[in-house]
Formats: sequence, structure tokens, C-alpha cells
Amino acid sequence: MKKVVTFGEIMMRLSAPLNSRFIQAGHLNITYGGGEANVVGSLAHLGIPVSHVTCFPDNDLGYAAAAFYRKYGVDTKDMVFKGDRLGLYFLEVGASMRASKIVYDRAGSAFANLDPAWFNWEEILKDAQWFHWTGITPAISASAAQACADAIRVARKLGVKVSADVNYRRNLWQYGKTVKEVMPDLIAGCDLIVCAEQDAEDILDIVPDANEANSFVSIASQVMKRFPNIKQIITTRRETLSASYNKLKGISYDQKEYLETPVYDINPIVDRIGGGDAFMAGFIYGSIHYTNMQDALTFAVAASALKHTVEADVNLATVPEIEQIMKGNTSGRLVR
Amino acid sequence: MKKVVTFGEIMMRLSAPLNSRFIQAGHLNITYGGGEANVVGSLAHLGIPVSHVTCFPDNDLGYAAAAFYRKYGVDTKDMVFKGDRLGLYFLEVGASMRASKIVYDRAGSAFANLDPAWFNWEEILKDAQWFHWTGITPAISASAAQACADAIRVARKLGVKVSADVNYRRNLWQYGKTVKEVMPDLIAGCDLIVCAEQDAEDILDIVPDANEANSFVSIASQVMKRFPNIKQIITTRRETLSASYNKLKGISYDQKEYLETPVYDINPIVDRIGGGDAFMAGFIYGSIHYTNMQDALTFAVAASALKHTVEADVNLATVPEIEQIMKGNTSGRLVR
Amino acid sequence: MKKVVTFGEIMMRLSAPLNSRFIQAGHLNITYGGGEANVVGSLAHLGIPVSHVTCFPDNDLGYAAAAFYRKYGVDTKDMVFKGDRLGLYFLEVGASMRASKIVYDRAGSAFANLDPAWFNWEEILKDAQWFHWTGITPAISASAAQACADAIRVARKLGVKVSADVNYRRNLWQYGKTVKEVMPDLIAGCDLIVCAEQDAEDILDIVPDANEANSFVSIASQVMKRFPNIKQIITTRRETLSASYNKLKGISYDQKEYLETPVYDINPIVDRIGGGDAFMAGFIYGSIHYTNMQDALTFAVAASALKHTVEADVNLATVPEIEQIMKGNTSGRLVR
Amino acid sequence: MKKVVTFGEIMMRLSAPLNSRFIQAGHLNITYGGGEANVVGSLAHLGIPVSHVTCFPDNDLGYAAAAFYRKYGVDTKDMVFKGDRLGLYFLEVGASMRASKIVYDRAGSAFANLDPAWFNWEEILKDAQWFHWTGITPAISASAAQACADAIRVARKLGVKVSADVNYRRNLWQYGKTVKEVMPDLIAGCDLIVCAEQDAEDILDIVPDANEANSFVSIASQVMKRFPNIKQIITTRRETLSASYNKLKGISYDQKEYLETPVYDINPIVDRIGGGDAFMAGFIYGSIHYTNMQDALTFAVAASALKHTVEADVNLATVPEIEQIMKGNTSGRLVR
Amino acid sequence: MKKVVTFGEIMMRLSAPLNSRFIQAGHLNITYGGGEANVVGSLAHLGIPVSHVTCFPDNDLGYAAAAFYRKYGVDTKDMVFKGDRLGLYFLEVGASMRASKIVYDRAGSAFANLDPAWFNWEEILKDAQWFHWTGITPAISASAAQACADAIRVARKLGVKVSADVNYRRNLWQYGKTVKEVMPDLIAGCDLIVCAEQDAEDILDIVPDANEANSFVSIASQVMKRFPNIKQIITTRRETLSASYNKLKGISYDQKEYLETPVYDINPIVDRIGGGDAFMAGFIYGSIHYTNMQDALTFAVAASALKHTVEADVNLATVPEIEQIMKGNTSGRLVR
Amino acid sequence: MKKVVTFGEIMMRLSAPLNSRFIQAGHLNITYGGGEANVVGSLAHLGIPVSHVTCFPDNDLGYAAAAFYRKYGVDTKDMVFKGDRLGLYFLEVGASMRASKIVYDRAGSAFANLDPAWFNWEEILKDAQWFHWTGITPAISASAAQACADAIRVARKLGVKVSADVNYRRNLWQYGKTVKEVMPDLIAGCDLIVCAEQDAEDILDIVPDANEANSFVSIASQVMKRFPNIKQIITTRRETLSASYNKLKGISYDQKEYLETPVYDINPIVDRIGGGDAFMAGFIYGSIHYTNMQDALTFAVAASALKHTVEADVNLATVPEIEQIMKGNTSGRLVR
Repeated sequence: MKKVVTFGEIMMRLSAPLNSRFIQAGHLNITYGGGEANVVGSLAHLGIPVSHVTCFPDNDLGYAAAAFYRKYGVDTKDMVFKGDRLGLYFLEVGASMRASKIVYDRAGSAFANLDPAWFNWEEILKDAQWFHWTGITPAISASAAQACADAIRVARKLGVKVSADVNYRRNLWQYGKTVKEVMPDLIAGCDLIVCAEQDAEDILDIVPDANEANSFVSIASQVMKRFPNIKQIITTRRETLSASYNKLKGISYDQKEYLETPVYDINPIVDRIGGGDAFMAGFIYGSIHYTNMQDALTFAVAASALKHTVEADVNLATVPEIEQIMKGNTSGRLVR
Repeated sequence: MKKVVTFGEIMMRLSAPLNSRFIQAGHLNITYGGGEANVVGSLAHLGIPVSHVTCFPDNDLGYAAAAFYRKYGVDTKDMVFKGDRLGLYFLEVGASMRASKIVYDRAGSAFANLDPAWFNWEEILKDAQWFHWTGITPAISASAAQACADAIRVARKLGVKVSADVNYRRNLWQYGKTVKEVMPDLIAGCDLIVCAEQDAEDILDIVPDANEANSFVSIASQVMKRFPNIKQIITTRRETLSASYNKLKGISYDQKEYLETPVYDINPIVDRIGGGDAFMAGFIYGSIHYTNMQDALTFAVAASALKHTVEADVNLATVPEIEQIMKGNTSGRLVR
Repeated sequence: MKKVVTFGEIMMRLSAPLNSRFIQAGHLNITYGGGEANVVGSLAHLGIPVSHVTCFPDNDLGYAAAAFYRKYGVDTKDMVFKGDRLGLYFLEVGASMRASKIVYDRAGSAFANLDPAWFNWEEILKDAQWFHWTGITPAISASAAQACADAIRVARKLGVKVSADVNYRRNLWQYGKTVKEVMPDLIAGCDLIVCAEQDAEDILDIVPDANEANSFVSIASQVMKRFPNIKQIITTRRETLSASYNKLKGISYDQKEYLETPVYDINPIVDRIGGGDAFMAGFIYGSIHYTNMQDALTFAVAASALKHTVEADVNLATVPEIEQIMKGNTSGRLVR
Repeated sequence: MKKVVTFGEIMMRLSAPLNSRFIQAGHLNITYGGGEANVVGSLAHLGIPVSHVTCFPDNDLGYAAAAFYRKYGVDTKDMVFKGDRLGLYFLEVGASMRASKIVYDRAGSAFANLDPAWFNWEEILKDAQWFHWTGITPAISASAAQACADAIRVARKLGVKVSADVNYRRNLWQYGKTVKEVMPDLIAGCDLIVCAEQDAEDILDIVPDANEANSFVSIASQVMKRFPNIKQIITTRRETLSASYNKLKGISYDQKEYLETPVYDINPIVDRIGGGDAFMAGFIYGSIHYTNMQDALTFAVAASALKHTVEADVNLATVPEIEQIMKGNTSGRLVR
Repeated sequence: MKKVVTFGEIMMRLSAPLNSRFIQAGHLNITYGGGEANVVGSLAHLGIPVSHVTCFPDNDLGYAAAAFYRKYGVDTKDMVFKGDRLGLYFLEVGASMRASKIVYDRAGSAFANLDPAWFNWEEILKDAQWFHWTGITPAISASAAQACADAIRVARKLGVKVSADVNYRRNLWQYGKTVKEVMPDLIAGCDLIVCAEQDAEDILDIVPDANEANSFVSIASQVMKRFPNIKQIITTRRETLSASYNKLKGISYDQKEYLETPVYDINPIVDRIGGGDAFMAGFIYGSIHYTNMQDALTFAVAASALKHTVEADVNLATVPEIEQIMKGNTSGRLVR
Repeated sequence: MKKVVTFGEIMMRLSAPLNSRFIQAGHLNITYGGGEANVVGSLAHLGIPVSHVTCFPDNDLGYAAAAFYRKYGVDTKDMVFKGDRLGLYFLEVGASMRASKIVYDRAGSAFANLDPAWFNWEEILKDAQWFHWTGITPAISASAAQACADAIRVARKLGVKVSADVNYRRNLWQYGKTVKEVMPDLIAGCDLIVCAEQDAEDILDIVPDANEANSFVSIASQVMKRFPNIKQIITTRRETLSASYNKLKGISYDQKEYLETPVYDINPIVDRIGGGDAFMAGFIYGSIHYTNMQDALTFAVAASALKHTVEADVNLATVPEIEQIMKGNTSGRLVR
């Protein structure tokens, strides 16, 4: 099978143990995460050949980050070890009405300061079937945005499918260009995007047509009209009852059909980070393995639901486990 | 007071910490457990004199397993230290819709390869009032089944009450005999059994009579007709809402009366393993201490409910704590 | 801003990890706590200058206890290091229907044996705006009760506002005087008290007037009539659904107005200890910062709700976090 | 084989993890220890039937302490559960030139306040071959000293061998009697004592005769002259190079012969606490199992040396391990 | 660069934390190790492309073991997932005169029961420059020995260099053939072996010639005479002062020259397991990277020395770190 | 007593547990440290009133860092909370011949980007007796160097004693100025400096006069000639036998007298970081408390030796503990 390739920053994640606050913590648990790498980490666990492209400092922390993803089956041969520092994020895990809290410390990272010339996309993508990126990458720096544009261009040229989670993060985008200046050109190169209604407004100034009953369909239609390469738009709808209890479903529109999945109750949540990335990974797996789009979408949201019960950013659920959830076996009965 | 004696395998339990998956675990928490030993471990905590009979390898792991039960008050003097290895089981603890998962590694254990001649049941049972076994033991090996048969025979001879949790485990029973060939003769020696409807069908080919309103009564009646020594059949009914949330009640039939207890909500579940063993221990305690069968049964299910809030296989709830639950004080209000 | 001063014992808290029972624990987590110190620990975190007055043994455990509160911003300069031992309490954390359990070991502590002459209240309170004590202090020993009386007297003389959480603990009060002999004189010196209905009966023999629709108003009216310095009485109403799930609201009466807050769902509870102290701290902060009593009371109960999601006795919630809860943002949505 | 019985206080030991100081510790590791109980804990591990007599508060901490020793094979049936609190000691583990540090918190313990009438020594000692006590017990309280005197008297009457580690602890002895008033009568009832030269001076005012070349022989001779029941005196000589590196040997005098063992290098020391108790346990085992006193003494000091490599108070070395050290195999070569 | 390939069993290693004994342990740290896999794990860390061939059960434990080595850069594509169980070993870490202790539990493992037909050696070795095996593999089972013979044969055919650590383990070899029946034919296919004098005697009945001053040279000469493919024999000489302090050097003979390295002091030892495997990995790296055999040998023993300071089986030392030791910079001065 | 004030950056220290390498670590222990803050952290523990001046980001990590020092008694009121990020350093702890390793990640920190105008040194130093800085501060950025110069100038004006540890760090000094351009002017304002011979050459181009027998005296004389404010120069001499074993002494020259202390053996080393800062803190304490310079210097080096046995950057040794070492009581005998 041809591989799935992703491009984006990987950070060290330092999380306070259990529910303790930063000021109480005597140690921080460390794993590594990045929105795009989480997608391939999860896909590797589902048996899909994958590679992630990124840039790390040439020090022990960079090696440890690469080793983390290699452990889960991600090919690390196209990672570049240059630059000054590893991006970090500090995580405090909430409970009940107390929200989880992230302190980012990613400025000046090796990835932010990458040189687009370091990546030979023709070579990297030659055996790929799918290239996935997210809206975080072009938000980090002009050079990261440029490398992302290069990758999309080469992918299209090679006939590699392109997807993106457009994911607008207000706190990024500090290098002098705005999301509205940069993203439309990148989105134009995609076959499929994950895009919530708020993202459509923030990035593309697209709002639902008041006459359209289904606001998501309204927005998706407008997006696809503007970007003809895009054939499908998907997203999750999350009801956040508390930091410990969420409900989740997936929705999709592809100009012909609006689909939605059953709603999954997640209570308690073990780790909410990476839930969206697990959805995307599940959708890629589903698109490859199922002929039926409803099944692909349900697989995606079932995968995402399971991710919330697993620690760290990468979804370590297996295909049989996800298929059990798809079939409605959500009772968590002991498997002997 | 005369003692309660059990016979069965004890395994080392290696559980991944918190909700982490095996592939993430840097350490495994170790305790020890076995369906029959859990019953006496719990009874010792309730103040009943007890002894457990088993077989361990003559190495540090065997000594550690024996020490674990001795700590909780179980007499270990009739344990035999011979054979090759300690049976193990690896446990991954689920949450929400993700099920807990057990990987057994018990083949070739010292217990599986025991010699029935090692156990002098006349001596072992001479001060006993009650002997309890489970359907796991005869499923392990022919010699284990033989030792179990020996124990039942001697118990009956000495007037020791015999109970069994018939507990059919499909993955065991690999030594050339089937459950249906072995179990009926052993069940025939019991005064009381724990038997769910599915067990009755799997082991005894007994199914509910469609004309009987209460299917459990129907089955229990047929079982008791076929095995005249059996005077009472009990079991729990569990509603598994998720890996974190179960509802539990106990039921009983003794040819005169069908009883059931209130339903207990268990949310969140701390550790589900050993819930059934705690029920059996609670029932033995209840039978000895209460004149009223309804109280005995309610004590049993209240004990089991509390077990779900305690880590590891053995129920460490005390009599006053269980009696509070029996009385309906399930609010978990802080005890200063 | 003038400071808030509290007086009372601080104990080392030794809690069994996660949900394990004392007999299972290989280590105990240690923090430090005391009903009054928790109030100023929390206030310091809210930005109020505070000092706590207490007595510790002159050994490494006493220094560690002082350092714990100093870390969170409590001025420790009026703490006295004399006497024999540090009071302790052992905590086992419950779950679901299993209650948390405390074993106190505070007899003979440095605080219990304090000499009232060690404390120069004129000096200690000279820059204070508020002095707070609880019903635990006079319950410990005659000398502790005397020091408390001294502090109240000086505070009134200096025009420092006096509040108390009257908090009747049946297991204390073992030095020869009863709560009814000691507390009324101390309560008489307060401007505001936290007093539940049961406390009013236990301490003051005051019961609701059957003709009064609102029993709390009935009791509060009688208390204020008897103690004319008291201008307001507040308390929380807690519905204890399980050890893991409580509902909480705050109520107040000030002879003019009866107020109550919305009910907050707390599920799951991370740590219930110190919930009442967080309420008091929140109320002091609220009284200082809001002109509106309803806001002050809601801030207090929102603070208390958040405390239940934080480990250890001291509420480490911040003003912006509490204000989010006040505004009804209780969904615990991830803060990036 | 007849059992060995000991009598004395057991405390909870709370030790700061690794080399951290109390003020740094977020948790304390808990085990349980007492000079006399450590002797039988160690003997049980060597295969000798043993029982320990003590008094615990009737609460979860007392039960946990009993369970700790029961785990290692100590019979706990003669332990009494009455009184107020469990004695504690806090331990900070040193390294290099930094000494380990103990903070005792044992005043007012259940053991200190015991009633001698609680112990039926005729019954307790009826199957015993050896009774051992230490100088700590009569130092705790008048009632503890009385119970110790009772036990010695009954032991002598029943022909049970009596030994003591006279062990003078300056900080104890605070109940109004001095060591010199109490200990001589108790020592008079012993067949064998552990007594260093300093102890002989502090307790018995016996100093070496300047004309005697071997000061230990000089002292031992005087002690045995004064107390004719005593037939042998033993002790260890420890050279403390640092908190991490000690040298150890054992010496003995029995009126006929002065013996000493080789010197054992212990580097690094894992846990120094209980080293003397392991020596005593080793000597009791050696006296029972070897015909040769030199072997018994070497076994004792080899056992003690190994204890320094094992965490917690109780020596968990086995007979084969100790015998390897006796034979000079101290190279610690990996055992596969 | 062409890859280095190894073949052998990988076990889960379960080690008691710090210096605690099995009976004390509440958890066991888990890593994975195997004599041959450790060699490639270490080589991958040194930048050499490597692959390991083995057999795991098709369950979560097998996947975790593979992931462990993949993390460190070992290609896992030729691992086979079939069979019943993962081999295990339990490790207790010694200190000072107390030896570390291993309890093996590897009988019936997936590897022991492998089918030689599962491995297509032509394919596996086609891009290899070096194949390494150890005397443990043919000791496990007849089928493992057969697979090893197959690999050696194919390697020779393809011109791949073959090395072995002949490593006689008395406790293995229980499948009906003796070491002397099986090993000579396998050794005959090697270009280089690690062979201590005792191994030569145990496996090949070769003892030093009393007339030869250097016993290692005497033995090596005889071995090479008998097995003409072998061009060089190397080994380490270890002086075991205690479990915490060893001295180590390397020696070599290649028919022309006897070489030895400086002696390295290792004090304290962090983890002794895998020291020999690190030596072999260092020697393979050295043979590839240095023209001078003395440098290769010194690199090997410096690598092994560093391994003793790193936890777990795989040497995680880097080339620059090892080269510092080679240059005599063993002072461990802080690297900022 | 007037206070001691320091100025410099505080970083979060993230250290891999025990001896594990970064790639193995599942968590990192966190404490906080900075060369200057360590001096006052240690002095506070010795009972001297102190304050530290620094700059932190206005986020939870900055608050946690401040709280860490406040816990140990450092006044934090002059700390400024502005800027982007907290500087970090990652620490891997070596053993035996494996060196400890630090990865700095401090670029772009709040401290590096400070504005000198944020610090009102007249106010900050008004109650001070001593101001201490190190060569790290002016190496970080031009603005940090400027703030340091401001502080020195004001201190001299106010008659506050000024000391510096000149400490040349080659990897810093990257903002466009060299150490030789910046440091001489700052050193000129000092009364006392810590300066090793290599520092004198690197910073001041001063080398020993070949005719002078004592090279330190030769250098110190030249330095004091050039900078007439400097009245004394001190330093430590460290012999690094391994990462686990160092020897340490202190030396001093004050134009009249050359002094040196005994050599202290430190084996094993628990934590080497902060050893020099502990020496400086000890010297400040010694200068204040002893009339004899030899005693002050010995106190300083004894303090530093003890620091090596304590985890984290700040020396938590007490005055009595240090005085024991000064008196030669380095045997680490247990303190009961």
C-alpha cells in the first residue's frame, strides 16, 4: 500500500500528573505531539504505512521526539535535524467544570525557522497516496507556510490526494501575515478539508445562508463552490458538558449527500488532546478501507471517541476496537 | 469459628498504570489474584478464619504471591511450592466505552501441572465449615479437576458445606475434556452454586422454560431437580453502561423463595476485577452471620459494589462499611 | 491593601495514593492543611495579602509545613516554633459509594499545647482588615480556646472584622469543656459566621421555628437576635450523590435579604477536603471586591466548586477561573 | 520447631524518597518497623516459626501495621488492638557525609499506654523456645517496662531462653525512672545479651579494666560476673566511613572464648535501619542451626551486612544468600 | 551502508524498582531485552542500519516488545507475530555484596516454538553486511537452533560476515540435545566469535595449553585451528568487586596479534545487564569505522563500560560519548 | 539583620529521573534554579533575610518558579512578571564515567528581554547589606548586563557590599559583545569575587606569573592590583574522579593571607548542580557570622560539599549540619 504523509511541527508535551496544577507539580509527564504527526501515528497503529516530515533541533530532545513517533511505526527518515530548539507545550488536565489549560512555548523552534529548501517533496511524496496538513503549520512562520505550499503543489502534481484540517488558532499567526492572506491559496489545493463553521467564517469570511436549513451544508456548499478541487468537507460536532464529559458526532457534506453519525457519550474523558487528529486519521483509514462513506465517517468518529480514553496525543486504538464501537458496542465490557 | 477453605490458582496480575495501554506502560503494577483466593482474602478481611490451598513454583515469585494473601490474613500453610512457573495475567484498565482487556499467560503453570496426591484433604478440611471452588479450576487441567473432585468428596464426607461459582470460561478447557464432561459430577457435590443463566446453558444444557415468567427461577428449579444436593442458587445481574459505570443487583432462588436486592449504581468504577468473588465472599459471610436470607444476599451485593471502588482483586471493604451500604447509605459522605 | 489574618492548627495530611486503601499503600502523598490556613492559602492565590498564625514543633516537619503555606504566598512570620509534635491526619480517598475516610492523629500537638502568651495580637493584627477563625480551634484545648478569645477581643478593639466558621466537630472537645460552654462567647465577637442549621442546634440549641417557611432564615434570625454583632450568616448546601458527585449551592441571610446561588454540579470530585474553606475564602474575597452581595456569594460557591477539582486542601483556583464559573461557563472547555 | 517470640513497639516508618529532604518530599514511603519485630520478621524469612507481641490502636493504621508483619510470616494472633495512636518515625536518608535523620513521633502511642494485664504470657510463651526483647521497650513507659518484666519472669519459669539487645537510647526514658533504675533487674533475667561497651557504661556503670588488653572481654566478664544467668555477650563493631560506606564485624565472649568475624565492606548502603536487628536475628538462627559458635556469629554479621542492601527495617535475605556471604562470596556476581 | 542483522529471542524484562526485592515490589519496571537484539539496538544508536529477526505472540505484549526496539531505530519488518506467549524475565537489582537475581520465565514462548520455515533468510540478508547470533538461541529449542543454522548458511553463501557470542548458559539446553552436539557446527560458520576461556571448555572441550604463557591466546589458537573460518576471537575480562563496582577490559587474538585495552573502573554500576551485548555492538561498530583493531577493541570496551551506567538492556551511549571514554576522559565532568 | 539581594535568571530545571537518559524518560522531575537565586535560597535556609530580583513571564510557569523560591524563604516582591517565556534547562544525571548533561533552552526568555527600567534599585537595595551577581547575567543580553551594571552602581552608592562569581560560560555571550568588553567594568565594582584561574585568563587575560610559587596567589594579586575595590578572591578546587565521586576544597587570598580548607570527599554525589552557588552562600553566611576568615571559608566549602548530597539546585543544609562537617564529623552517622 502507498503511504500517507504528513507535515507539521512536533512538540514535547509536558503534562502535570493526574489533576494537579502546575504550581503543585513535582514532575511533568512527557510525551510528544503535533496535529499532523498525531494523524500518522494513529494511522500507523491502524496498519497504514506512513511517514511524517518535520524539523527538530539536532540534540537529544529532537532525537527523543523522533523516537517517540518511530516507536508507533511512523517512518522518520525524512525528518530534518537542524535548528535551535524543540517547541514545547505545558498541559494541565482539568476535571468537572475546571478546564484543561495549555501554555505554549513554541516560539523560535527549529520548525518555525525551517528553510523550505530542506525538503525534497518530489522524493518524499513519490510513494504516497495521501498528503495531509493542518492550518497550524502556515500559522507558525512564513517559511513553514512556504514549505506547506511546496508540498501541496508537488502532491497535486504527483496525483497524491491532499487533505487539510483548516483549524484556525488565533494565538498563532504572528509573523506578519494574516490567516486570510495565506490560507485560501493553500486550501485551494485540497481535495478534502475538515472545517467547522467558525473556521469558515474566520478564514474565508463564509457564513451560513439564513435560508438554508442546515448551516453546515450551507457553508460547505459555498466553500466547495469557491474551491473547486474540494470534493468533501467533514467535521465533528462536540457538546462539552464538562471537562470530564463530552458528546461527539461526525458530519460530512460532499455536494450530493449530508451525513451524520450517531452521538457518542464520552464519560469520563481520560485525555481530550488529539481528539480531532484521531478523527482525521480515522477518516483517512475509513476512506481507504470502506466503500461506504457513512461507514468511513462513523469509523472516524468512533476512533475519535476512543482516543478520549487513551493518554497522550496519539490514538492507540486498534481497528477491531474501533469497529466494536461502530457496531454500537460501547458498554466497555471486560475483554478476557 | 471453623474456617472457610478455597482451592484454586493464584496468578500474578500485572496492570498498566491508570488508563495507559500496554504499549505505553513503563511499569506494571503488581498484585496477585485468583477467583477462589479472592473469596477467602475478602472473608479474612471480614473476620472469618480462612485458608487457601494452591500450588506455586518454589521461587521468589511464588513466595511473593503467598505473602500477598498472608498479609490479608489468609492461612498459607497448605500451599505447596513445586513446579515451574507462576501463572500471570496482564490487565489494561479501560474507561468510558473502552473495555478493560486481559492477556492471560497461565499455560504451564505450577498449578496446571499439580499432582493431586500433594493435597491431604482430610487434614486440610478437618477444621473447616465451608469449602468453595470455581469452574476455573477444573478448566485448567485434568489434574486440577481431579484435585477439585477429591476435595469435594472429602468435604461432603466431613460434613463441610460445599459451594461453587460455576463460571464457564470458554478460553480455558484446552486439555482434552469439555466442560460438559467434567463439571456435572463436580456440581453434583455442591450445596450451593453461583450460576448465571448463560452458564446453565453452556455447562448443563439447561434453558429457561418459556412458560415460566422468571427465567432464573425456571433454570434454578431445573438445576436443583437434577442435582438434589443443591439447595440454593444465586447470582448477580450486571448492567454494563460503560467501563466506568455499572449497575448491580443480586438474585437468589432456594425452591421456596425468589429474592432480589436493590440495584446499586457504581460510578465511577475503580477496579472491576474480583467483583464476583466479592459477591461470593459476602454471601458466605452473610449466610454465617444473618438469619435472614434477604440480608445475606444484600450484604453480598453491597460487598461486591464496594469492591468495584477498591484497587486489586481482593475486596478490602469492612463489615461496617458494607452494612452502611446495605442500609442505603450510598452517598459516600466523608467519614471524619 | 490591609491583610487577612487567620489562626488555627495546620496538620500534615498523609493521603493514600489514588483510590488505594491504607493497607495497600506503599507511600502516602503529603501536603499540609488546616481549616483556617486553607482560607488564607486560597486568599493569597486570589491576590489578597494574608498571614496565618499557628504553632509548630521546632523540627523539620514544622519547617516543611510552614514552607508549604509560604510557597502559596502566606506570610509565616507570626508562626511560633515550639512544642512537641506536628498534628497529622491520614486520608483515604473514596469513590462512588465508598466514602473518603480520615484518621486524625492530632492529640498532643504543638498547637494543642500552645501558651496563649506566645501571641502578641496587638502586633499581629495591627495591619489587618479581617480576622477569621473556626470552631475547630476552641475544640482542641483550653489554651487554644483562650488564644482564640484573645485574638477576637483584640480584633474588635482594633476595628478588624471578625468572622468564624462555627463548624462543630463531635470528636474534638475532649479537654473537659463542652462546645456549649465555650463557643457562645466567641461567636458573640463575630461580625459574620458560617453556620449550618445542624451547627446552630448543636452549639446554640437554636432550632427552626416551625412557622417560618425558610428554616435557614428562621435560624439565622434567632442567632442574630442573640448575638447582635453578627450581621450576616452564610453557609453552603451540599447534596452528596456519591463520593464522586456532589451538588453545591451557597445561601446567605443578613436580616434584610435571603440570597442563594445557582447549584453547581461537581462530577467527578478530585478532592473534597477544603471545600468549605474555599467557600469562606471566596466569600472574603467577594466581600472585598464586589459591591453586590449576590456576586460575593456566587463567587464564594464557584470558588468552592472549583476547589473540588484541585488536589490538596488549599484552593488553587484563580480569580479569572472563578469568574468564568460565576458567569456560567462550567463546560470545562480546553483553554489553549 | 518451637517458636521465637518478641515483644515491643512497632511504628509506621515514613521515609522521604531517595535522598530528598523532608521539605522537598511530595510523598513519604511507608513501611513499618520496630527493633524487636524486625528480629522475628527476619527470622520468619529464615524459616523459623515466630510470633510478635505488641499493642496497636484499633484503627486502619494498626491493622496495616499488623498486616505488614503478617505478610512476612509473623504470627499476629497475640497482638492487642487498643489505645489511641500508632507511633511513627520519619526518616530522611543521608548520603556521603550527610547523615540520615530520624524524627520520632511516638509519644502517647497505644504501646506506651498499654496495660500489662492485656498479655497472658503463660499462654503466649507456652510453645516458645526463645524470648527476645530490647532496651527500647522499658524506656518507653512504666507499663511497657512492667510487661517486659512479666514476660521475662514467665519465660524463665517455662525454660524459654531469654535474650536482649540492651540498646540505650538517651532520648527515651522520660517517664520518671532512669535506665539505671530499671534495666539491671531485667538484664538479670537474660541468658544472652547484645551489649556494646558504651551501653555497659551507660546502663551498668561498667568500664573496661585498664589492665585487660581486650576491652570488650573485660566488660563482658564484669557483666557476666554481676549477672550469673548471662552466659554470652555479643555485639557488632561498625566503622562508619560515610553514610554510604560502613565496615562491620561481629564479636562475642562467653567466658571461655573471644570470637570475632571477618570485616564486611558495605558500599553502597541501601538502608542502614534494622542492621542491628538483622544481626540479632542472624544470631538466633545461627545458634539454633549451627553447632559451632564461630559459624553462628559469622552468619549473624553476614545477615546484618546483607540487610544494609535491602530497603525497609526487616531483613529479607534468605539462608542461601547469607551462607554465600559467610563463605566469602561477596562479589555480588549476577545470579541467572 | 549495508545493514547488520541479528536473530534471537526478545523477552519482557520486569525489574523490581531501585533495590527492592520481589516480595516488596508494588510495581515492576518493564523494558524488553534479548542478547542479540541488544546488539542491534545499540548499533542503531551508533548510526548503523540494522534489523532484528525474531518471533512474538500476536498480542499486545508482542507489539509492545517490537515497538520498544523500533523506537531505538531497529527495523522490525522481518519479525514474525505467531505463537503463544512472550518470554519474560524478572530482575531484582543487587547492591554492594548482594547479587542481582534473575528469574527466567521463557518456557513455551513464541520464539521457542518457532517454525524455521517462517524465515526467508535469502530475503532477510540480501542487503546485510554482518549477521550476529549468540549461544542462547540454539540453547532454546531444536527449531531455534535450526533457524540459526539456516541463517548462518545463507549468510555465508551471500558473503555476509558472521559473528557469534558463544555464551554457554547451563540452565538452558533442555530440549534433548547438548551444547556439545549442537554448537560446533554453528561455530564453524563464524568469522569471529566472542568466547571466554570457560566457554571454550564447556562448549568445545578446549583448555589452555600449560606451556603457553597467555591462556587466552592458547585457547584462541586451538579454536581457530579447529574452525578455520574463524579469524579473530575476542572477549571481556571482568573483575567483580561487588554488585556495585566492577573493572572491565577487552582482549583479542587474531593469530597475529594479542591485544588488550585499558581497564575501566565502573563505580557505581547502574545496570549491569547487556554489558556483553554492548561490547559486541561496540566491536561491530569499531570494526566498520576504525582501520586499527586496537581502536575497535577499545571502542567496544568503552561502550560496554558506559552501558553499565545506563538503565535497561540496550546501550544508549553515543559515538562521541564513547570516544571520550576511549580518550581516557572518564572523569564524568558535567557537560553544559 | 539587613538582607542579601541577588539578581539573575531563574530557569525551570527538567531532569530525567534517576540515571535514565532523555530518550528513556516518561517524565521529567521539575524544580527551578539559577546561579544567583540558589545563593539566596541557600542563605534563607541558613536564616539570613534575602530577596531575589528577576523577571518571569506572566503565566503559570512564572508563578510556579517564584513560588518555588518563596517556599524556601526568598522574598519575591521585587520579581517582575513580564515577557514571553520561562528559560528552561534539561538535565540528564550521569554516573560513574558517564557525565551529566545539560541541554539549555533559555533563548528568548523573559529575563533575556528585560527592560533595565523595570528595576528600581534604590528601592530594592535600600535595606540590603550585600548584593551578589554572577558572570552569567551579563552574558545573557545587553539589557541584562545593563541592569546588572545599574544594580552594582546603586549598591556601591548605598554602601552595600558587592560580590560576584565571575563564572565564564563560553556558550552564552551571543548578543554581540564579548566577555572581555563587558565584564571588567562590572568586576571593577566588586568588593569580593569568586574567580578560578581559567576565568582570570578568559575574562581578564591574566595568567600566573611563572616566578610565583602559588599560581592562585599570583593571579589574585594581579586582579586586585587592577581592580582596587576588590579586597578578596576566593574559589573552590575540585578533583573530578568520576560523575559519582569528587573531592573539593576552598581557597582564598586577600593580599595578606592565602588560606585553604581541608579536602572533602564526596562519594556518592547525589546532585552536583548548584555546588558553586552553595559555596558562595556559605561564604556570605560565614563572612557575616564568623570573625575568623578560615572559619568562613571552611563553612563555605563544607556547605558546598553537603549540597552535593541534596537533590535540586538549592542547598537545603542547615547551619548545625554544616558546622558538623566543619568540625570533621563527616562519617554520616545516623542521627536519631
